[in-house]
Amino acid sequence: MVNIMKSLPSERSIIDDIRSRLPDGGAAGLVRGIGDDCAVLARAGGLLELATTDTLVEGVHFDLAWHPAHLLGRKAVAVNVSDIAAMGGIPRFALLALGLPATLAKAWLDDLLAGFIAALAEYGVVLVGGDTVRSPAGLVLSVTVLGEVAADEVLYRHGASPGDGVWVSGCLGAAAAGLELCRGGRALPAGHPWAPLGRAHLDPVAQVRLGRLLATSGMVRAMMDLSDGLATDLAHLCKESGVGAEVDAACLPLADELRQAARELGRDPLDWALAGGEDYGLLFAAPADAAEKLVRLVAEAGGPVISRVGYCTAGSGVVLVHQGRERHIAYQGYDHFTGPARP
Amino acid sequence: MVNIMKSLPSERSIIDDIRSRLPDGGAAGLVRGIGDDCAVLARAGGLLELATTDTLVEGVHFDLAWHPAHLLGRKAVAVNVSDIAAMGGIPRFALLALGLPATLAKAWLDDLLAGFIAALAEYGVVLVGGDTVRSPAGLVLSVTVLGEVAADEVLYRHGASPGDGVWVSGCLGAAAAGLELCRGGRALPAGHPWAPLGRAHLDPVAQVRLGRLLATSGMVRAMMDLSDGLATDLAHLCKESGVGAEVDAACLPLADELRQAARELGRDPLDWALAGGEDYGLLFAAPADAAEKLVRLVAEAGGPVISRVGYCTAGSGVVLVHQGRERHIAYQGYDHFTGPARP
Repeated sequence: MVNIMKSLPSERSIIDDIRSRLPDGGAAGLVRGIGDDCAVLARAGGLLELATTDTLVEGVHFDLAWHPAHLLGRKAVAVNVSDIAAMGGIPRFALLALGLPATLAKAWLDDLLAGFIAALAEYGVVLVGGDTVRSPAGLVLSVTVLGEVAADEVLYRHGASPGDGVWVSGCLGAAAAGLELCRGGRALPAGHPWAPLGRAHLDPVAQVRLGRLLATSGMVRAMMDLSDGLATDLAHLCKESGVGAEVDAACLPLADELRQAARELGRDPLDWALAGGEDYGLLFAAPADAAEKLVRLVAEAGGPVISRVGYCTAGSGVVLVHQGRERHIAYQGYDHFTGPARP
Repeated sequence: MVNIMKSLPSERSIIDDIRSRLPDGGAAGLVRGIGDDCAVLARAGGLLELATTDTLVEGVHFDLAWHPAHLLGRKAVAVNVSDIAAMGGIPRFALLALGLPATLAKAWLDDLLAGFIAALAEYGVVLVGGDTVRSPAGLVLSVTVLGEVAADEVLYRHGASPGDGVWVSGCLGAAAAGLELCRGGRALPAGHPWAPLGRAHLDPVAQVRLGRLLATSGMVRAMMDLSDGLATDLAHLCKESGVGAEVDAACLPLADELRQAARELGRDPLDWALAGGEDYGLLFAAPADAAEKLVRLVAEAGGPVISRVGYCTAGSGVVLVHQGRERHIAYQGYDHFTGPARP
């Protein structure tokens, strides 16, 4: 599935290139353009509009051999809604651009759409438009989600300060482990001890409620979602905030089933946790003295678990401290063009 | 290029199916969902937001063998901005989801992005976000454009009344003829008498200025853009308005070079004009007594030419009157799944 693009530079450098080509200076109504989880547009009454688009491509982001149609429809919603959650927003409307191969069966498409529409309803999102085209070479799901957030609540990737704690929600690496198990043809029926790993890859959950809680807490300085792995995502947050970060490997939240699967497959669970991607938890920075209050706030709201995995530094880049040794890990997560890198 | 999907129903029936699965009743802030050129969302101060998404897929909508990268970038903008123009709106912001095959050369991508960004600037649109992914089987450009329009100016597909004139802007069929010439390997350098046909396919222009003029004229009752051919697009406008239409073949605006190319290739120019698609002019309905004033208004504003091609009836469906005979032509334009149909 990983198909290194020899002729093209990395995803990050393509995006940097696009940014550098855009006209200087802001546009009327534009609060934040490329560089965050969502574009941010000014609306009346102290409201901001959030806009994000994410594409799932057959053979890159999913494989029809093991991805049930219904769950794929749900995932196309979740990965987009996650970007709204990442900024503390409320998702509102969606557009679906659907590229359909000629070989797709009508019943399979029905399941896909049923999952897509059910997930939209769960997140309170209304499908308002889209485009349906042929796609000779494979299924493509391109979704745009619009959301909103109060101007005094929105959280960006920038805003973290040296000394802030670096936090993540949920466990890391489960989706990456699940993908590897699916690829290996491992059956993970409900009740299997590793079933949560498969589920994390097949049916991720966007953390809208947690995003709102953190955004309205007044205790969080910067936030984004975990989509490309902690090593890459934290590097983005650090770069936009003008800080560095140090992560303590011992603090990374790893599920028991992840450790067990890693042992049996002869893998290092840290690889999955740092570079795997698709966690769709939230990554955020908060002042050190807010730690106890934050944990209590989230616990009282019914979770999910949040973990402090390190802290921001006055330097740059991301350093992992593991068994007393330091490694630079910035941007060593998933890149769509160069493939995964090992930390 | 036309690849009939045996296993899937038509694009129209897929969209109807999606509409039928959505929850009944409106959502807060939603003025108009699926079924028009754009979704329409309520904003403060008498403003409406318009949102549209359109996808171009390699091998379906374009062929890299003859589509220059720069012009393809421009086209990806124009086909989306055209949907904003179709409702009388002003395009404001864009998101670009780019699926890139591994074989794409960096220089080619640079040209594509340069064309994309230049066209955005011409329409006054700002790129605010997007997604960049690998696409193993071919280039995919999925663009979302957000725009705005005053609530008392917006034009929908519904609103036409029996007796209204049916109008189109520009000439019909040029893009379809250009596509056929490109497919046939016909060189159409600048200065070639048929060059405008190739240009119409490769580098269409969205009619934003005309859309604004018509929307603010107070003389137009219903409007949409011409993307799937007059036969299909007018059928949509009629269905949403609850009217029928009669089109006079003798009134269809056909460019001289289109007639000439049709003669030389042994084709019926009406096929291109009715079923070809990708004209990206505007299709609109206006009361019969507004005809003279409309023509004068548009001419004084510097064009483009608008032509009355027929009128709305109290029936349903679309009838073409050609050399004294009538043919039903509703929905006989381009469908992404069943391919083109001959009227």
